[in-house]
Amino acid sequence: MEKIKLGIIGMGNMGSGHFRNVEAGKCPSVEVTAVCDINPQRLETLGEVAAFTDADKMLESGLVDSVLIAVPHYLHPLMAIKAFEHKVNVLTEKPAGVYARQVREMNEAAVKTGVKFGIMFNQRTNPLYARAREIVQSGQLGKPKRLVWIITNWYRTQAYYDSGSWRATWDGEGGGVLLNQAPHNLDLWQWIFGMPKRVRAFCDFGKYHKIDVEDDVTIFAEYENGARASFITTTGEAPGTNRLEISGDRGKIIIEDGKLKWWKLDEAEREFCFSAREGFICPASKYQEFSEPAPEGHPEVLEAFAKSILTGSELIARGEEGLNSLSISNAAYLSTWTDDWAELPVDEELFEKKLAQLREKEKGKPQKK
Amino acid sequence: MEKIKLGIIGMGNMGSGHFRNVEAGKCPSVEVTAVCDINPQRLETLGEVAAFTDADKMLESGLVDSVLIAVPHYLHPLMAIKAFEHKVNVLTEKPAGVYARQVREMNEAAVKTGVKFGIMFNQRTNPLYARAREIVQSGQLGKPKRLVWIITNWYRTQAYYDSGSWRATWDGEGGGVLLNQAPHNLDLWQWIFGMPKRVRAFCDFGKYHKIDVEDDVTIFAEYENGARASFITTTGEAPGTNRLEISGDRGKIIIEDGKLKWWKLDEAEREFCFSAREGFICPASKYQEFSEPAPEGHPEVLEAFAKSILTGSELIARGEEGLNSLSISNAAYLSTWTDDWAELPVDEELFEKKLAQLREKEKGKPQKK
Repeated sequence: MEKIKLGIIGMGNMGSGHFRNVEAGKCPSVEVTAVCDINPQRLETLGEVAAFTDADKMLESGLVDSVLIAVPHYLHPLMAIKAFEHKVNVLTEKPAGVYARQVREMNEAAVKTGVKFGIMFNQRTNPLYARAREIVQSGQLGKPKRLVWIITNWYRTQAYYDSGSWRATWDGEGGGVLLNQAPHNLDLWQWIFGMPKRVRAFCDFGKYHKIDVEDDVTIFAEYENGARASFITTTGEAPGTNRLEISGDRGKIIIEDGKLKWWKLDEAEREFCFSAREGFICPASKYQEFSEPAPEGHPEVLEAFAKSILTGSELIARGEEGLNSLSISNAAYLSTWTDDWAELPVDEELFEKKLAQLREKEKGKPQKK
Repeated sequence: MEKIKLGIIGMGNMGSGHFRNVEAGKCPSVEVTAVCDINPQRLETLGEVAAFTDADKMLESGLVDSVLIAVPHYLHPLMAIKAFEHKVNVLTEKPAGVYARQVREMNEAAVKTGVKFGIMFNQRTNPLYARAREIVQSGQLGKPKRLVWIITNWYRTQAYYDSGSWRATWDGEGGGVLLNQAPHNLDLWQWIFGMPKRVRAFCDFGKYHKIDVEDDVTIFAEYENGARASFITTTGEAPGTNRLEISGDRGKIIIEDGKLKWWKLDEAEREFCFSAREGFICPASKYQEFSEPAPEGHPEVLEAFAKSILTGSELIARGEEGLNSLSISNAAYLSTWTDDWAELPVDEELFEKKLAQLREKEKGKPQKK
């Protein structure tokens, strides 16, 4: 069987997890032909595979036709652009980057190079979210009215944040729950429901942990078509909740506890509202429920990436789409920092200026570890 | 059996409903001895009871020791103050009034007079909300972290809004879903979780109906103790949701679909967070579920009001507490009108000025009916 020749850049938690998935045979179209990490200790126990401490050397070696990028967030676009220059296909971890400009530039480089470019939004493989997207995007839910996502089950202890000096710092990670945990949900939000035109967000920084970045967030978003969204996330609540509700002119769907519940109205609410003669009646609806187990996610995204290179089939998430979720989180920071609305696309210059100030300020502080 | 002598002021939907409840024997400590409405047609089919078209005359008649006020919102404080002047006990419909100043003045009059003063927050009789309050207020949920209430099942058709010319106008009703439907939920919010210090709210006016007032609202609120709240309500979604979630340092409760679900942590999350050695673990919790049928509500509040007069027992909701939910809705309007934060207590002068402008503007428009 034909396989892609994959190099993994970054052999930390995520990179070594992907390596093990391939070794375990979960991605039959992938062969890991090289690994790379600036820390040589991380390369010691990986067997026969070629090991590099310099990504450029790996890319120049001719051993790989594709890379999986699993380094700290700021470096995602940098490594991707390097790979594009070598005409090497790229699957990057989320988030796409830390600030919109670098991601936009990465996307432009990808288009120019023409190689395959994917991003590890593994939660898109969950059939319930895929079904939600299908219901919304096909128009079966009618004109969108509202999305509410309470996604507070990203609980993390202080030990988690203390496990790496780059974690939960402006300079090392570029953000907190919005950059590390919630990108999956921000991506699903925009994938299912589309992009808002402006947001008003409320980030609390270091509320539940000894960190500089945000660990508690509420985002309110407005859409051009009149729809509204509320997105609530934190790493400081236990037990958390993961409940997505979307309503439209033709009914409502809720995803919670491994189930998708769907109320489908017999007629459009907007018509019912003005034709009904009574004041207190509701349009009738039919109820359906779906319960479909989610796959692991990571191996499926990697395998689909390999297949798209080998056969031209679809990616699970196109790399360029990483800009969308990042733009929402960039806007959420900007809104909090300016205590005002933030329009989308975000003001890239203002965002970078504010972020640079925070990174600078942090340097004066004692190191976390 | 001893009974209070109740006069009902306003024999519209609510007033005549209360009348029927008493007639049906649901309030054994109440005798309706008089009714009052400016529309004499509404008084025709009520049998033997003394009927007035002037509230002053009823209060002067000596036929009543108590009144139930069920007139349009602006008149609640006005009628209550009249009654207090006659040393007559007052049970008023919600909301307490339209703007905080008039309600504050009503409350001051009530205290001065010393009669019983209650408000028709009938949803407080729902044992699930009472249990939630007990869990939160007793400290069993630990320090409060967040409240999220999606209360979008107040669906109303255009026919509802067309059913009375005062409805859903600034001059007649003083507001929309926040003043008419959601006061119950705003009251339960503050009753269970306490009063926020500031809110940032997003009201959409006439979004789903041909009305001037709001029919779609998202409120974000901040507490002095660091807690956060999100409150989402509308009369334009079907089928709607009614889901209240409250989290604290000791766990979480959810009320939805007639059930209260309670996750009680074995130890405080704030301690666990800093003592845990692992990054991805959660504190353990015990789960309990309660399902208790809610009573009708209205008769229970009226009967408790009568009992409090006859025996000195507790009211279900003290009239003075009506100021709390009204203050939240006043702040939500103010925040939307100024596109900025609104502090609590609200700026009464600014609120009245803005409201007066809207009432004035409305007068130039053609009548709704």
